[in-house]
Amino acid sequence: MKEKVEPRTLPGFMELLPQDQITFNNMVDTIRSVYEEFGFLPLDTPTIELSEVLLAKAGGETEKQIYRFMKGDTDLSLRFDLTVPLARYVAGHYNDLIFPFKRYQISKVFRGERPQKGRFREFYQCDIDIIGNDNLDLIYDAEIPSVIYHVFQKLNLGKFTIRINNRKILNGFFESLGLLEISSDILRVIDKIDKIGVSAVKEELKSLELTEEQIEKVLSFLAITGTNDEKIKALKELEIQTETFQTGLYELETVINSLRSFAILEDYFKIDLTIARGLDYYTGTVYETILDEYPKLGSICSGGRYENLADYYTEEHLPGVGISIGLTRLFSQLKEIGLVGESKTTISQVLIVPMDKENNAYVLETASKLRNKGIKTDVYYQDKGMKQKMKYADRLGIPYVLVIGETEVKEGKVAFKDMISGSQELISVEEVIERLTNC
Amino acid sequence: MKEKVEPRTLPGFMELLPQDQITFNNMVDTIRSVYEEFGFLPLDTPTIELSEVLLAKAGGETEKQIYRFMKGDTDLSLRFDLTVPLARYVAGHYNDLIFPFKRYQISKVFRGERPQKGRFREFYQCDIDIIGNDNLDLIYDAEIPSVIYHVFQKLNLGKFTIRINNRKILNGFFESLGLLEISSDILRVIDKIDKIGVSAVKEELKSLELTEEQIEKVLSFLAITGTNDEKIKALKELEIQTETFQTGLYELETVINSLRSFAILEDYFKIDLTIARGLDYYTGTVYETILDEYPKLGSICSGGRYENLADYYTEEHLPGVGISIGLTRLFSQLKEIGLVGESKTTISQVLIVPMDKENNAYVLETASKLRNKGIKTDVYYQDKGMKQKMKYADRLGIPYVLVIGETEVKEGKVAFKDMISGSQELISVEEVIERLTNC
Repeated sequence: MKEKVEPRTLPGFMELLPQDQITFNNMVDTIRSVYEEFGFLPLDTPTIELSEVLLAKAGGETEKQIYRFMKGDTDLSLRFDLTVPLARYVAGHYNDLIFPFKRYQISKVFRGERPQKGRFREFYQCDIDIIGNDNLDLIYDAEIPSVIYHVFQKLNLGKFTIRINNRKILNGFFESLGLLEISSDILRVIDKIDKIGVSAVKEELKSLELTEEQIEKVLSFLAITGTNDEKIKALKELEIQTETFQTGLYELETVINSLRSFAILEDYFKIDLTIARGLDYYTGTVYETILDEYPKLGSICSGGRYENLADYYTEEHLPGVGISIGLTRLFSQLKEIGLVGESKTTISQVLIVPMDKENNAYVLETASKLRNKGIKTDVYYQDKGMKQKMKYADRLGIPYVLVIGETEVKEGKVAFKDMISGSQELISVEEVIERLTNC
Repeated sequence: MKEKVEPRTLPGFMELLPQDQITFNNMVDTIRSVYEEFGFLPLDTPTIELSEVLLAKAGGETEKQIYRFMKGDTDLSLRFDLTVPLARYVAGHYNDLIFPFKRYQISKVFRGERPQKGRFREFYQCDIDIIGNDNLDLIYDAEIPSVIYHVFQKLNLGKFTIRINNRKILNGFFESLGLLEISSDILRVIDKIDKIGVSAVKEELKSLELTEEQIEKVLSFLAITGTNDEKIKALKELEIQTETFQTGLYELETVINSLRSFAILEDYFKIDLTIARGLDYYTGTVYETILDEYPKLGSICSGGRYENLADYYTEEHLPGVGISIGLTRLFSQLKEIGLVGESKTTISQVLIVPMDKENNAYVLETASKLRNKGIKTDVYYQDKGMKQKMKYADRLGIPYVLVIGETEVKEGKVAFKDMISGSQELISVEEVIERLTNC
């Protein structure tokens, strides 16, 4: 007897059992359907690209994580996000695209990070982006969170908040304090305020050589509270006259007002002046999304506005705005806290169980009738006892079983068994269809 | 100005423009919906696996084509099909699965072949398999082509034929001639009969040292013609008594009869004694699928019955039957012959075009009403002329445009423009919804 190879997968690579896979796919379907409802076009770029092309812009941490290898003489890499392939795509197909180009892509990306809880090396991103040709109206900055609002409403994960900021407000504010050059260092400190508290932040700002006065101003800026309108008002009252700050404030106010036009409930979006995100990339509006009851999950959907998508590939000026859901990570977190994967899910609504092989024609005719009405129907053909057959339905979570034997065929009916209540009735296939399509 | 990197993709990697991507996705959706209609469960295995695991069974040509590389100290490979991952999955999750285990997987696989017309290095496979625990009823050999029958009916690619054979008939036949040991060589020759003709096949069989008598028997075996029933009858009349042949004949006849129970039109399946497929793998029923009007495309969907799925990973005996559609290749072929991609496809059914920014609330309210009814709706927010706005709808193939300006808002209506007829009417949103949900 040959020695067996252990059938294991790599750490950091999610693989689901069928029930969880169904749940996961349902989430993908929901996300996709909302993306399409808003007119986003599908895209599917190659998993493997030329390293020279894919890494044109990368560097530092990203480059280290990449799955990069030679095939023959060719230097290849697996995509590590969906934004770089989008940039390459728009630059390469520029003349064939219609702008604004609204695309979604739901695909796996690959990052060879040290595997740890909640971190994956292969994971799904569900991205939408809107790319303008030379310019892109500010209202698209409100359309993006409005799409996300509908996605999370439909995913039904409880109350959530889309946090919104504008990078120009932050930059303009630091500029007014003469701190623009170290703004990214300051933002890194500020980002920790929820974790380490105000006094620790104060200490760290001191070590960045901010004066007492500067520190006070930064802290009182961050301490701006109230409703969205109150925050806008407070920002106006700071009377910071730099052009960057004023532009940022105008943009933020416009986006907030547009969100109201998009009929997003006021409670679901909130100005948060501490959000910066991807320091070198985003230039205007930025977003994060938090599940209110599970703030520890962190942001489950983030993005923002960027000035130029593809300057490594093309001279064309391509401003855009986009957002990404890291679905593999989100799913694994939701499963851990029990928000998904608790109840049984199923593909088939009905299992047909033939008593014997004599009545195959009737069995298959019945299956066809159900499938023609869009009712997903499995048939159990194995020669096993009734107990085994019922166990199959039960373990797959199939809610209804049709038993077909001699009696049923003779009467032109089926024995309709409700797996939850356990009740069983002799009814016609047409009646089965009526019950299942009305429930 | 920085030098730009050319935004190119690798040869052998398909990347589609949005219109074609929509068509491609529609095909995937059709395939998936039929797979689910028959109760197949979804699976999504990792793209990257340990080489040791993935290549446990591989060798020869396969191994050369694989994308294999080191990451740190780990020897990794990209999956080259969906069957090996299925074997690894079933062996690894054996205790958590319910048998017969019916799964589908629609995923990309990777083969570093020399790129040539119609060959891809990254391509989608759409697989279904049914795995039994220790045994699997023969009727599943008929369920598989019955699923494929519905898939290709719905894909609407014209008349097709599912060709069916049984490896045991071939093996038993060669056994009866004392040619079992060189049967794979003979099958390779036979496989070329359509291309090179009978007399060339005769010559090649001679060079395999077959006697005149053996060659005559092989050729008259292959020459068996007629309806499915006539072929079965002719095979019976050969009176070959080897157990393998008789088992094969019984299986073939049973599968053919079952296909009739599955209500597949007789014209769509056909016994073809020349089909062998994957010589070392399949052990019983084998399938190929041909588009009748485009026989040159070759088999667009193939598979068969195997005795044991996962003997490299487990002691469990796991017989199965499956089939695979190589969708990337099929799509590219269909596009080339003009069977897909000719007419405009669209995601959005409606484009809303605001005349100006004054009426955003009304515009967005209208969009919401449509989306709530499941009508995919895009809104054009860019500040451009009406001509540009209409061009956007036209180039995206969006069939209806709603223009909203001062008049429309005042009257509580929209200007409903049919992009094909060019007609325009002032009607209510409710009327728009009624027209679009009834068409």
